[in-house]
Amino acid sequence: MNMPRSGYLCKTASSQQKWIMDKSKINTSLPRIDGDSVKVTAPATIANLVCGFDVLGMAINDPYDEIEMRLNNENSDIRIVHTDDFNLSNDPAKNVIGAALKAMQEEGGVACGFDVTVKKNIKPGSGLGSSAASSAGAVVAANQLLNNRFSNEDLVRFAMHGEKLASGVKHADNIAPCIYGGITLIRSIHPLDIVQLSFPPLFVAVVHPQIEVKTSDARQILRKEVQLKDAIRQWGNIAGLVAGFIKQDYALIGRSLEDVIIEPVRSILIPGFYELKQRAKEAGALGGGISGSGPSIFMLCETEKIAKDVEKEMQLTFDQIGVDYKTYVSTVKQ
Amino acid sequence: MNMPRSGYLCKTASSQQKWIMDKSKINTSLPRIDGDSVKVTAPATIANLVCGFDVLGMAINDPYDEIEMRLNNENSDIRIVHTDDFNLSNDPAKNVIGAALKAMQEEGGVACGFDVTVKKNIKPGSGLGSSAASSAGAVVAANQLLNNRFSNEDLVRFAMHGEKLASGVKHADNIAPCIYGGITLIRSIHPLDIVQLSFPPLFVAVVHPQIEVKTSDARQILRKEVQLKDAIRQWGNIAGLVAGFIKQDYALIGRSLEDVIIEPVRSILIPGFYELKQRAKEAGALGGGISGSGPSIFMLCETEKIAKDVEKEMQLTFDQIGVDYKTYVSTVKQ
Repeated sequence: MNMPRSGYLCKTASSQQKWIMDKSKINTSLPRIDGDSVKVTAPATIANLVCGFDVLGMAINDPYDEIEMRLNNENSDIRIVHTDDFNLSNDPAKNVIGAALKAMQEEGGVACGFDVTVKKNIKPGSGLGSSAASSAGAVVAANQLLNNRFSNEDLVRFAMHGEKLASGVKHADNIAPCIYGGITLIRSIHPLDIVQLSFPPLFVAVVHPQIEVKTSDARQILRKEVQLKDAIRQWGNIAGLVAGFIKQDYALIGRSLEDVIIEPVRSILIPGFYELKQRAKEAGALGGGISGSGPSIFMLCETEKIAKDVEKEMQLTFDQIGVDYKTYVSTVKQ
Repeated sequence: MNMPRSGYLCKTASSQQKWIMDKSKINTSLPRIDGDSVKVTAPATIANLVCGFDVLGMAINDPYDEIEMRLNNENSDIRIVHTDDFNLSNDPAKNVIGAALKAMQEEGGVACGFDVTVKKNIKPGSGLGSSAASSAGAVVAANQLLNNRFSNEDLVRFAMHGEKLASGVKHADNIAPCIYGGITLIRSIHPLDIVQLSFPPLFVAVVHPQIEVKTSDARQILRKEVQLKDAIRQWGNIAGLVAGFIKQDYALIGRSLEDVIIEPVRSILIPGFYELKQRAKEAGALGGGISGSGPSIFMLCETEKIAKDVEKEMQLTFDQIGVDYKTYVSTVKQ
């Protein structure tokens, strides 16, 4: 048997493999590791992108989490240490990182354990894919330590277990862009079908008002049935948005950033939402809306200057309302 | 005043104009007319394209209607003569051609009349955009006689009045591809927003079982509310289909040709539907479904050979059921 070199030693339990890995899909573009530990950054993500509820997501360059990981060849323990101030549990059974890595161990036939040190900058409950960054960052780091044994699609499957722990639902609209980068379409969860979309240069202004909106609450207030006529309008818009991204048609992107189903319900949880949207558009934004389940609001812009003007409008809006906030101006993470 | 040359004489009633025409959008690529009459062909169209109910449509090269038109400068009468055997009314108040041309007169400020001779090959009630071909063909012919005064978008607006007469609803998913050619997305009806989508070479096999399904009936059996989870699956699919067309990704097109909302309801009106779909896919079709409101069924194929194999399966299926049919194998009309 060929033993892997020091730092990669990890017994596999192939008999535990529950599914077939598609070796052709293994992403080999990730850097190989020289030592026995690895450090990765995991980007914030904007799920839904207004009209693509549960199926579209975008990775941005700021904010991001930092995850350092080391293989543990003695046993299969997952040890997590948070160096941030978000008061998240270090218990792997209660932390999305634990759920994601456990899925990799069980479904991917990985027998070794992991020591994880996390510095989160993406605040939990911000609507910027905080749990996804933890889950996705963890499996990306682990995969690098395992010599990129798994494909990106495999990693999405593992990381979705973290989302299941966080919100009760195995959704991938934050996980997929966090792992693939750029803008992703999750055409289907069962079977998993992720499509990377090309897009023109975009700048993203984000405001995170410091109010709490739980993903589970934001999901519960949605009606289980929608009007067919609204659904038609929504799928016209998502079709337009996808065409706009690929055709690099800014005007079409702007016209398509309309949500007649989710936004009218969820926006009631976010003070100043419609006023801010109006001001952002007047400042030149193409359009935008609630990031994920909120309360963060994002606006897509054609230039950095517009994005900074929009950021100012965001600051002014929440200054006037008297709600604390954080803002970010970022590009799309490739 | 510059008088138009003989054959183009047509007074305009600009005071009647109800909306502003965007001159920049006027399509000048259409052939100019040498005489005082014009003959156009109007293609059959496949609305919905499975997952794009009310927003997607595709023009095909066969079958098509033939419309001959002459300007009448004496009065604003619209005279229609059908030379086919479909027993359609020649009364302009009861014929979609009359409705479309009247809209052009009233909304476009056109004072002259039209003498129209129509030979329809697209059977009314086939689900292949028969009424749209009449309406769209008529306004395209009239526009050529009027020296291409109107843009394609204007023509869609006029022709939609024909659809309103035919089915009670001003939809554009047959009209738009009939006028623009290719595959069109109607992102929005109010305001009208038509997006032309690029696509790879495609062959289309169509079967028209000779049973009657009225558009208005096919619309009435649809539920007014749909499950949010089904709507999500549907907009994942339409996003995938649009991406597949533009990226020329046949496999993605095939995976995205899935309809969880309309097809399960409307397919009960079409005997043999699921069996045929299964056989067509086994013969190599990418996928397909009900054309418009049916009963025609279409299948998209990567090659002509596959489309012809699929046509054979269509024939066999309806031979076995004992239902008369007509089949077509065609390319997409550019």
